Amino acid sequence: MWKKILLCGLVGAAVLTVGLLIGHYGITKSSSPDWVGAVSRDVDESMIEQFIKQVDNKQIEENLRELTKVPHMATSQGDVQLVQYMLDRWKDPKTGLDDAWKDTYKVYLSFPDDNTPNNVTVVSSTNSVLFTSRLKEKDYTEDQRHPDIVQPYAAYAPAGNPRGKLVYANQGTVSDYEFLNETLNLTGTIAIVRYGGAGRGNKAINGAPFGVIGVLVYTDPKDINDGKMSDENETYPYSWYLPPSGVERGGFAQDFGDLRTPYLAAKDHTYRIPESDIKGLPPIPMQPIGFEDAYTLICALTGPDPPPDWKGSFNCSYKLGPGFDLNSKFPDSDVQMNIYNKCVLKNSDNVMGVIRGSVEPDRYILYGNHRDSWVHGAIDPSSGTAVMLEITRVLGKMVKEGKWRPRRSIIFGSWGAEEFGLIGSTEYAEEYYSKLRDRTVAYINVDISVFANATLRVQGSPAAQSVVFTATKQVKTPGSQTLSVYDNWIQYFNRSSPTHGTIPLLGYMTGAGSDYAAFIHFLGITSMDIAYTYDRSKTKARIYPAYHTAYDTFDYAARYIDPGFTSHQTVARTAGNVLLRLADSLLIPFKASDYAETLEQFSKTALDTYNVILTGKNIDMVPLMNAMAKFKSAASNLEKLIRDSDLTLETPLKVRRINDQLMFMERAFIDPLAFPDKQHFRHVIWASKSSRVPTFPGLADAFDQAQKSDSAQDWQQVHRHLSIIIQAIEGAAHALEEVI
Amino acid sequence: MWKKILLCGLVGAAVLTVGLLIGHYGITKSSSPDWVGAVSRDVDESMIEQFIKQVDNKQIEENLRELTKVPHMATSQGDVQLVQYMLDRWKDPKTGLDDAWKDTYKVYLSFPDDNTPNNVTVVSSTNSVLFTSRLKEKDYTEDQRHPDIVQPYAAYAPAGNPRGKLVYANQGTVSDYEFLNETLNLTGTIAIVRYGGAGRGNKAINGAPFGVIGVLVYTDPKDINDGKMSDENETYPYSWYLPPSGVERGGFAQDFGDLRTPYLAAKDHTYRIPESDIKGLPPIPMQPIGFEDAYTLICALTGPDPPPDWKGSFNCSYKLGPGFDLNSKFPDSDVQMNIYNKCVLKNSDNVMGVIRGSVEPDRYILYGNHRDSWVHGAIDPSSGTAVMLEITRVLGKMVKEGKWRPRRSIIFGSWGAEEFGLIGSTEYAEEYYSKLRDRTVAYINVDISVFANATLRVQGSPAAQSVVFTATKQVKTPGSQTLSVYDNWIQYFNRSSPTHGTIPLLGYMTGAGSDYAAFIHFLGITSMDIAYTYDRSKTKARIYPAYHTAYDTFDYAARYIDPGFTSHQTVARTAGNVLLRLADSLLIPFKASDYAETLEQFSKTALDTYNVILTGKNIDMVPLMNAMAKFKSAASNLEKLIRDSDLTLETPLKVRRINDQLMFMERAFIDPLAFPDKQHFRHVIWASKSSRVPTFPGLADAFDQAQKSDSAQDWQQVHRHLSIIIQAIEGAAHALEEVI
Repeated sequence: MWKKILLCGLVGAAVLTVGLLIGHYGITKSSSPDWVGAVSRDVDESMIEQFIKQVDNKQIEENLRELTKVPHMATSQGDVQLVQYMLDRWKDPKTGLDDAWKDTYKVYLSFPDDNTPNNVTVVSSTNSVLFTSRLKEKDYTEDQRHPDIVQPYAAYAPAGNPRGKLVYANQGTVSDYEFLNETLNLTGTIAIVRYGGAGRGNKAINGAPFGVIGVLVYTDPKDINDGKMSDENETYPYSWYLPPSGVERGGFAQDFGDLRTPYLAAKDHTYRIPESDIKGLPPIPMQPIGFEDAYTLICALTGPDPPPDWKGSFNCSYKLGPGFDLNSKFPDSDVQMNIYNKCVLKNSDNVMGVIRGSVEPDRYILYGNHRDSWVHGAIDPSSGTAVMLEITRVLGKMVKEGKWRPRRSIIFGSWGAEEFGLIGSTEYAEEYYSKLRDRTVAYINVDISVFANATLRVQGSPAAQSVVFTATKQVKTPGSQTLSVYDNWIQYFNRSSPTHGTIPLLGYMTGAGSDYAAFIHFLGITSMDIAYTYDRSKTKARIYPAYHTAYDTFDYAARYIDPGFTSHQTVARTAGNVLLRLADSLLIPFKASDYAETLEQFSKTALDTYNVILTGKNIDMVPLMNAMAKFKSAASNLEKLIRDSDLTLETPLKVRRINDQLMFMERAFIDPLAFPDKQHFRHVIWASKSSRVPTFPGLADAFDQAQKSDSAQDWQQVHRHLSIIIQAIEGAAHALEEVI
Repeated sequence: MWKKILLCGLVGAAVLTVGLLIGHYGITKSSSPDWVGAVSRDVDESMIEQFIKQVDNKQIEENLRELTKVPHMATSQGDVQLVQYMLDRWKDPKTGLDDAWKDTYKVYLSFPDDNTPNNVTVVSSTNSVLFTSRLKEKDYTEDQRHPDIVQPYAAYAPAGNPRGKLVYANQGTVSDYEFLNETLNLTGTIAIVRYGGAGRGNKAINGAPFGVIGVLVYTDPKDINDGKMSDENETYPYSWYLPPSGVERGGFAQDFGDLRTPYLAAKDHTYRIPESDIKGLPPIPMQPIGFEDAYTLICALTGPDPPPDWKGSFNCSYKLGPGFDLNSKFPDSDVQMNIYNKCVLKNSDNVMGVIRGSVEPDRYILYGNHRDSWVHGAIDPSSGTAVMLEITRVLGKMVKEGKWRPRRSIIFGSWGAEEFGLIGSTEYAEEYYSKLRDRTVAYINVDISVFANATLRVQGSPAAQSVVFTATKQVKTPGSQTLSVYDNWIQYFNRSSPTHGTIPLLGYMTGAGSDYAAFIHFLGITSMDIAYTYDRSKTKARIYPAYHTAYDTFDYAARYIDPGFTSHQTVARTAGNVLLRLADSLLIPFKASDYAETLEQFSKTALDTYNVILTGKNIDMVPLMNAMAKFKSAASNLEKLIRDSDLTLETPLKVRRINDQLMFMERAFIDPLAFPDKQHFRHVIWASKSSRVPTFPGLADAFDQAQKSDSAQDWQQVHRHLSIIIQAIEGAAHALEEVI
């Protein structure tokens, strides 16, 4: 009996144990919510490998072919067609995004008059026209014969018919005009200047105060063609060099964004400032011409010889003028500019597309490029758009097939009217300011994706350095199975970092060269601009020679810039890799300590350059050093916290908190009142500056000004800018410090 | 045998079932992380009940007694002692907070000269001094005999010794001076004006252009004492009314924040603008005097009679002047002001204390009051500080005992130098701008907690209306077991809401009356200001009569403002309840639809008032209506989403997302460039304005200006402000819309 009871007890206990075990492990417990796993998932490296594999150079080539069929200047027929094309691609049921739409702005643009083309003539004293500049570029392929090609012109330069003696003013910088003014009377002259050295419109803004009444701009073969000039065998279609009739078009206004609605999105109903209130426009007519015409004019000049470094590649002496040599074709003649540009309000579209984030849809990674070109724009900007479309095709397909969805939302932007001054992206930033400010982790810009096929080139906020490095170590150079983009890049651009040793050089985002401007300077969003570029030992060209001309075509790209489109593919893989890491990483891959390194370098430069003089003015730089120390220590504490945590086990709100600290760090550098005269520039580290000292822009420019004037008021401005920087760096430190 | 097997099987099955059940339900499964429950916990109503119970009127009384022992004007000995007292309280191991510290700013303050007191004299034509104003207020209790009582003066009014004929200028508004100027020559006169109707400093700013060279300010018994004048039985210590020698001190600068470091925190090293660059200061000497002295001066005046509504309570005719009646005590005499105010930089402290949030430490609820008074400041501001200290005592105790910790962090601020222009709170907002902007859910201000004991009075952002209503329904009125604060409040201040029917009236946060200014106007943080106040049927006093005088003492508070301190207790319970709901609710208790109601009312008023004229100027108001519709629809969609969700079951990141939408809604109304002439005012809904039309301030003021001038430029400004408002409302709608 006892045995039976014992046996019964044992069996009972065994059965109970089985029950306990099955009950505990075998049956899913409803108390652990479904989302627990999802919220702590990190980036999936195998997915990134898949992405890299699927990025296809042939697809990019086909994208580019489609994008460059016709000229597509902002708001033109070709642009409107591309709006639809982008929408179709991003709404494609198999490879499209979750959603796509267009945002329309009514923007202030400048065009030549179709019926009365601009021209530059040489007129004799008896009013005979001895010479007329070309109205269009010479055609070598079918592309140059397209009727929609806009005549070369200087957008936003005023109309007018100035007539005067020609002078050669080098690059049209202030010092160039000052130099001329020492010996010549510039009043009533027309200046001819080379591209480079000064902003496009500044060549007129600088000259007008000296009496110059019109400016011609051309690209000297020395600056763009490594000296090559002949279209019989040297220039396109024989090479990538610019044919003699090629003309660089461009926007000639200083500020960016729609010029009549600063800080307001340019809707139909929006208040527009009077045209007369727009600042930074060329005050006198301007016209760009080809070097063929420039040669004719410059080589006929009279007057003194220029300094040696003013000379370009022409086989003549580049006399300064004023006026033409009596032995030239144009004795006693004037130059007459006939400029019929006019400004109009036109509707320009941004095309937007999104992939909704699964875990944090309210965190955005933005990726964008402009859509509008000057002519066919194969390189500028379609090389970037072709890359963007390949990235969206690969990611869109994964989304549509249910294989992947990012943690954070990804927003793609195909911006309108960039060539006229980054208009589409800036209006977007203005319209959605609060939302973008509150939610955006990063902005990736890929405008011209391939300038040339030698090496990667990245400009970016230091916060993004490490994610760019991670991505570039994983992607191989074009055609190679072994050499990483990183290892190739470091050979071309590098620097010595106190923390990391020799590393690739991430360029600064100081200017407003492309659509990143509104994101970094106005919104304070960590941004980067990615491209493949030149081997500088092989060319001195200021930029790829067909830039903004009728030769920037598919044929040009396919033959001379990136045959096989493997550099495009490499950029797509690199930018896409960065995008995926930003979108999917549990921890946002920003490093505050990398920012600290740059800030410390700026601070050290400021100290070395200014401290002796500022001490003499009773302006103390120690508080700047203290702010730096605070930022460094905050960065290192945060990184220690991250190192010491297993974020996959932490509450998702702690991970979010750390991510917010990293995201908002950059925002702390925004000060809307720091630069009252620099429209949209609010980032106290990266704002544009005139000074050549590589340090904080407000401080550097204020110091230069104060040294020049030595006025008490200007020294006060130096102190003010020092205080602004200190407050911004301390603000960024607060963003990183323990939240309570 | 079969029976046995069957039995065995049944028993076995039963045991197994028990095992399964225990295994599944009885043993905690490790796969569900600890934090899952915590992140979805909502506000604990029983904890709030506990809080209400523990708030003790006796403790508040003792706090007030301690706080009012000595005068504690900003940076004085008494203020420095209170800094230490606050630190001691907040660091108390049993009832203190997690941490407390002080933040010091070097700020620009204005004081009279201790050695050479200000005075106002009447001087005869032979330079005999016929009358001298009182140098200090008459003492009735020991408090008025304290040596640290600052002489009455007008802070930031310049020093000087103007001498001239006296004129009576009513309240010193622009129209008051215009009226006088029609018949009198104001050049070289000294104006005597009543408090009220215009900002303190404006009484001089308005008069100076008419030639006025000095301004005396006094409080007419009609405006403050319901006409009572005699200190033999009518005024304090016999009642709450102001004794004849009582003088209202005050800050007389227009702008708020440290005047020499606008937008920069006033650290030692910070750049300071030159004193001559400070805007909005009184341009001529000013001095406040008691109505006893004012009576002597005004009743001796000659000249025409004033309009009836200029007359106060004096039993004389309030002649306008200029100068004294030949039959008065002062025939042929001038008034001479001898003002020795001087400005100095002094260190002022904010005392800060925190309770760290358990789940979202990076979300802040701020609660603050200033610490500095003019004299003993029992009501202003110590009634608020006594309440704050009781709230921190009760919450600190719960924290120290491990009974409670808020979901979000709570930051308490005891601001310095408010009386000089909200300086401590504004410097704090400047120094920590980015961090506060990114993380702060709400700011609660309780300055004077009890003006009188009749009813609650709340000014606040409409977003906070519902949480204030919830709290006030739960707290009972002083001494009552049944009547809620809400039900009492609605009897005194109410309005008809299209959505809610008759509800208590939440006042607008339009001015800069206390430390909420920097938080709502500069930072765009949802703010509220809470107090108990008057039954307006019982008194017409502009404010409690001892305001800013030497009679604002503990004795005054205990005898006449809140005997038993039960109104203080009610405010502590109400403000604490709001604080706890903001800190602990899973969903931030803001209602976007309540904001929509206010915005719609503003829009409707704008449409009704301006549309006919604006249409004539080709300015279309339909886009404003469209923006409103967009905001309303976004608000209602978000509220539907909230209604349809069980947030306790959602991923914490979804809850956080919705909370961020609610938190950042208010931020979208900030535009740093909307009001370039209004320092620190950036909130396009609540900025200060001159117009009386209850609508958007920028639009209203621009419209008034344009109607006055009818200049094209001014009408453009109307259009500009309309666009600014539309963009802000749309921005707020974007903050609320589906995030992607």
